[in-house]
Amino acid sequence: MLTIVVDMMGADKGMEPLKEGVKRFLQDKSFDDAHLVLVGNTEELKEFDSEERIKKVNATDILPMEAGALDAMRMKSSSMNIAVDTAVSNHYDAVVSAGSTGGFISLATIKMKMIEGIERAALVSPFPSKIGKQVTVLDIGANNENTAYQIFQFAQMGALYSKLVMGVEKPKIYLLSNGVEEKKGSPEIKEAHQLIKESGLEGFQGNIEGRDALRGEADVIVTGGYAGNIFLKTSEGMAVIMSELIKEAFRRNTISKIGYLFAHTGFDKMKEKMDYKSFGGAMLLGINGVAVKAHGSSDAYSFYCALKVAYRMSKEKIVDKIKEAVNALKNQSEDGKENERL
Amino acid sequence: MLTIVVDMMGADKGMEPLKEGVKRFLQDKSFDDAHLVLVGNTEELKEFDSEERIKKVNATDILPMEAGALDAMRMKSSSMNIAVDTAVSNHYDAVVSAGSTGGFISLATIKMKMIEGIERAALVSPFPSKIGKQVTVLDIGANNENTAYQIFQFAQMGALYSKLVMGVEKPKIYLLSNGVEEKKGSPEIKEAHQLIKESGLEGFQGNIEGRDALRGEADVIVTGGYAGNIFLKTSEGMAVIMSELIKEAFRRNTISKIGYLFAHTGFDKMKEKMDYKSFGGAMLLGINGVAVKAHGSSDAYSFYCALKVAYRMSKEKIVDKIKEAVNALKNQSEDGKENERL
Repeated sequence: MLTIVVDMMGADKGMEPLKEGVKRFLQDKSFDDAHLVLVGNTEELKEFDSEERIKKVNATDILPMEAGALDAMRMKSSSMNIAVDTAVSNHYDAVVSAGSTGGFISLATIKMKMIEGIERAALVSPFPSKIGKQVTVLDIGANNENTAYQIFQFAQMGALYSKLVMGVEKPKIYLLSNGVEEKKGSPEIKEAHQLIKESGLEGFQGNIEGRDALRGEADVIVTGGYAGNIFLKTSEGMAVIMSELIKEAFRRNTISKIGYLFAHTGFDKMKEKMDYKSFGGAMLLGINGVAVKAHGSSDAYSFYCALKVAYRMSKEKIVDKIKEAVNALKNQSEDGKENERL
Repeated sequence: MLTIVVDMMGADKGMEPLKEGVKRFLQDKSFDDAHLVLVGNTEELKEFDSEERIKKVNATDILPMEAGALDAMRMKSSSMNIAVDTAVSNHYDAVVSAGSTGGFISLATIKMKMIEGIERAALVSPFPSKIGKQVTVLDIGANNENTAYQIFQFAQMGALYSKLVMGVEKPKIYLLSNGVEEKKGSPEIKEAHQLIKESGLEGFQGNIEGRDALRGEADVIVTGGYAGNIFLKTSEGMAVIMSELIKEAFRRNTISKIGYLFAHTGFDKMKEKMDYKSFGGAMLLGINGVAVKAHGSSDAYSFYCALKVAYRMSKEKIVDKIKEAVNALKNQSEDGKENERL
């Protein structure tokens, strides 16, 4: 049995799609050992009263979307704050929220605390790729600035995530850079390249450019938070622009509208493939617990996906695995020092 | 009269498309005061013998695409090296090449020299936007790392470029960042934001996210070279992926193929709008001369566009205008110091 705490407030479209997502998750037999603690206005959660696997915690205040770290900590009555507290104090397995990203990162990092030895938490998200397979990208924006060592740790955590949560047996790992050559990149990226290479991280393939990142070759794309966020939003924005242009092209005149009638099945498939919302959200890696940030604009399906990811991360004990990796690395470097002394 | 030196060698598809581009440029009445110096194997340039406005300089060696700065300087016999030398020693107005980007940046920067007061040259390129208008983005990759002050200078140069070369009367200028709020961004971006604001740069609108950068609101997007390169390649790569998926969707089956027959006009227009190649290439700003890097894979039209941009930059005396802006800023800050002393 495992327990996931769910912040039911603060999503863009209110509680309805989240409730639908929860129902879908409950109906899915794959997760029948999961219990949920729903945090929100219990008046609005009455339909779950008879559900054995659900507990409810009342919270009526919503943390605003634009809330910063300080606001998030100060507003103790917010459903998000109560959700994270509930997870921490009861040692529950995971917490999921569709509210303010900044607020959630702050609350989860401060209250769940960092894994010892990990310098910075990273926000990780699966991206759609041309061939349909999902690509794991981190950090997509938990940080404004990262050192080479932090980026190196992101590579380790990303590799574990790809294996354990995405089920990729031998993930191919790339550093996002402005050139494929080893010597290309910002100073931090160049140094991170060396650190990753020296560590012998399995599956490390070198640098990749933004142009090729989503073609499907890579399983994990590693980058600092500032560049990662630009990568995320640029690719997402471009996909949206292109989709809008496709619509315009079909709406051009009566003849093109007829064309749509003939061709739309293929385009529906394409839309599905490149839909950023169907990936559940973003996960915070490097903290002492499982924290999943669902899209603010989640619909029922994407919220269900977010719950699924939280379940899988808990089940696969990703936090423990990251701890093991950090310790292995620590021992390695201590052995190194030992050898130097001899 | 003005004179543009053209490196005719080193393009991906050989000399043919470049020759076609040159012919198209010569035929265009708007540029009839332009003279061209073609640098390349003169044996292959015989068809221009009777053309009054063309001079030829023989050069048969090609700088390899992957050449670095040192290779570019060492290979003195390369058509690119000779082209830049010809422009510098004769005080010609501009130089255009479709060869190695790294090599061209190095040669142009070293031989034409930086404008006094400008710390770093920036590579600037127009991008397609959703509404068809071109957006000026810089630096798209001349640098791996930039200080806040360098990014501030890019903003100034970008504003001038948008006005003088793109013909935008009152360009709207944005900083590329991971959030629209003033306090979002890497440390350099946050500091650059303050510098630009304090300088009172006309048209500065604050930060913009990758998601909105190409919707058509912005005229100029300012960023450091590392993030700018990721922005360029990610948006370009995503546009390519989406185009490929559109093709696949239409090729799906007989019915979708019929759909294509009805709808293709709109899609042809869309392709034209989002075609990165039709923008001529990238221009190096901040050096003492006009240097235009045409796409390596230039076709006749895009090479013609590159020549057009070189013409326009020369005609509008963009180098002089940047010098004036630098001096104005210098005087401003000296006045500031003067005032502090009083």
